[in-house]
Amino acid sequence: MKIFQDYKSILQPFLEQYLEEKKKEFSHVNTWADDSFTRLQQFVVQGKMVRGGLVQFAHAMVRENNEDTLKIAAAIELLHSSLLIHDDIIDRDRLRRGSASLFAQYRDLAEQTGKNDTLHYGNSMAICVGDLCYLLAYDLLADISERYRRTVIIFFSSEISKTVFAQMQDIDLGYRNTCTEEDIINIYRFKTARYTFSLPLMLGGILAGQSERIITQLEELGETLGILFQIKDDELGLFADQTKLGKPVGNDIKEGKKTLLWYYLMQAVTEEEKKKLNVIFGNNNVPKKDIEYVRNMIKEKNVSEKIYCKIRALAEESRTLISGLSISETNKQILCDLVEYNCNRSY
Amino acid sequence: MKIFQDYKSILQPFLEQYLEEKKKEFSHVNTWADDSFTRLQQFVVQGKMVRGGLVQFAHAMVRENNEDTLKIAAAIELLHSSLLIHDDIIDRDRLRRGSASLFAQYRDLAEQTGKNDTLHYGNSMAICVGDLCYLLAYDLLADISERYRRTVIIFFSSEISKTVFAQMQDIDLGYRNTCTEEDIINIYRFKTARYTFSLPLMLGGILAGQSERIITQLEELGETLGILFQIKDDELGLFADQTKLGKPVGNDIKEGKKTLLWYYLMQAVTEEEKKKLNVIFGNNNVPKKDIEYVRNMIKEKNVSEKIYCKIRALAEESRTLISGLSISETNKQILCDLVEYNCNRSY
Repeated sequence: MKIFQDYKSILQPFLEQYLEEKKKEFSHVNTWADDSFTRLQQFVVQGKMVRGGLVQFAHAMVRENNEDTLKIAAAIELLHSSLLIHDDIIDRDRLRRGSASLFAQYRDLAEQTGKNDTLHYGNSMAICVGDLCYLLAYDLLADISERYRRTVIIFFSSEISKTVFAQMQDIDLGYRNTCTEEDIINIYRFKTARYTFSLPLMLGGILAGQSERIITQLEELGETLGILFQIKDDELGLFADQTKLGKPVGNDIKEGKKTLLWYYLMQAVTEEEKKKLNVIFGNNNVPKKDIEYVRNMIKEKNVSEKIYCKIRALAEESRTLISGLSISETNKQILCDLVEYNCNRSY
Repeated sequence: MKIFQDYKSILQPFLEQYLEEKKKEFSHVNTWADDSFTRLQQFVVQGKMVRGGLVQFAHAMVRENNEDTLKIAAAIELLHSSLLIHDDIIDRDRLRRGSASLFAQYRDLAEQTGKNDTLHYGNSMAICVGDLCYLLAYDLLADISERYRRTVIIFFSSEISKTVFAQMQDIDLGYRNTCTEEDIINIYRFKTARYTFSLPLMLGGILAGQSERIITQLEELGETLGILFQIKDDELGLFADQTKLGKPVGNDIKEGKKTLLWYYLMQAVTEEEKKKLNVIFGNNNVPKKDIEYVRNMIKEKNVSEKIYCKIRALAEESRTLISGLSISETNKQILCDLVEYNCNRSY
């Protein structure tokens, strides 16, 4: 979306300059400070910066963006980087944003220098860089205007704590063969939707001095948009072009992720097929032909149609929520475009 | 030390109540919120709370402790928990504070419920709980008086970032066979000393409104005390009673940690012995007899004597720094007792 590209073009140089300053600040500690910031300077800017853009957009609905907007937007992008870096360790995702994920970068470094136990080295280093991003995010938040500082930091901590608990639920379900549709939607809500859409929209709203009623409406819209986003994300994770997607296709199968696709598929298959699928899902060395088998089953059993139906329903719900917002027609249109984008994006 | 036990007796109920409140706040997300807080309620209070105690002490040197002191002290203990939880994953330390470390708790849980790949499950869950502790620490810091909020949070983030870079250096050196004494002291300074002693002393000093000169003196004292503390810690890690220590003896050998003990030992041995030691250090399955061999070598080659010499020198340096502080004689005595404690502790 053009508007988010525009917001990114403002946020990116701000983040780059911040990371460059921090790189200098910590260069006296050791060479790993420099190493971390160099990697982050690449990693952080590779994303679409939708979360940061949403802070900028929600603030701009009422007032012109200022330094506080950029600090909060940058903090949320760094926080997002923390989550991704740790998530890639957990999900053993070697690819992210078209490049090696952080743990894979350090694992490769260990291999190049002839170390043993290279995966553990990679994971350990990436745990540290993920931790660093949390610290940087709060460093930025502490620097915003006094009137918002306490509210924003406490709110931020609270929302990301929910993300962490949902991440734990997601990990645990990956090791199980059954769960309810409610469990899955609960993970979508708390692991993705709230921090990706509700949190930035609400933070922008708080900065803009929006009423409590609008903030609550933005929260609700964020959840709906975010659940839609995640369902589409799962579908792309299985059917998209890997080069465009920037991450491995079929990884959810390998990790036994309990997605809505998985749930609807399990509902649609015979007992015999279910047994076969239970062996495929969660197999860390799943062969390509098994991923192809799952893809075909999803088409054959009309699971895709059921997913599209769910996506359309959530899109409709989002549009209803948008129409009820006391914001300008132009801003309503931008939010509706965002709904469309979430439904139709190809990466 | 009696005084730190007294401070702990005030801080512990505060932390327990905080964690209990948060447990309630997040119970609507899923059962993992409850699970995390229940484990943290055990984990966090098992420590000696020296870092929290130092905040309380440094503040009390000038003014009576208040809510801010407790919030900062609690935040630093939670931050310490984050670092330990992630550190135990990195160092594969199964024991901590006399109980299973967090990753080991979750690994055991996975085993009990018949899951595969239990170590990855344990590590993944513990990454999340460590992340949670960061978020909680900042939640507490955001709630202190406005006049200190920005300074304290930015200062806190900056110091813990240094800890993270030093942790990376420590990981990397664990995979190497050589390093300088300077590298080792640099890790001691930035990975342990500054966040364990300098940071709490300085934060207490900031709260108390101490002059910049005293804050800088406390920083310097913290580094010296902390390096002493770490050298003693390494020695205990190899020679202490495991039950008293609460963590596995000889783990540094297994992980190939570049400690001062290792450095002095390598300086003292023949080329042949060095070859043998290079095989022992960093062997993840090091047998007990090899740990015993290292212990005997350390005694035989008078390495312990060299370590005691270093400890005595740092203790002397600490006492000189203490005598130069513009604080009461009673407080000087407490700090001198802390020096003695660091030299002589048995766990």
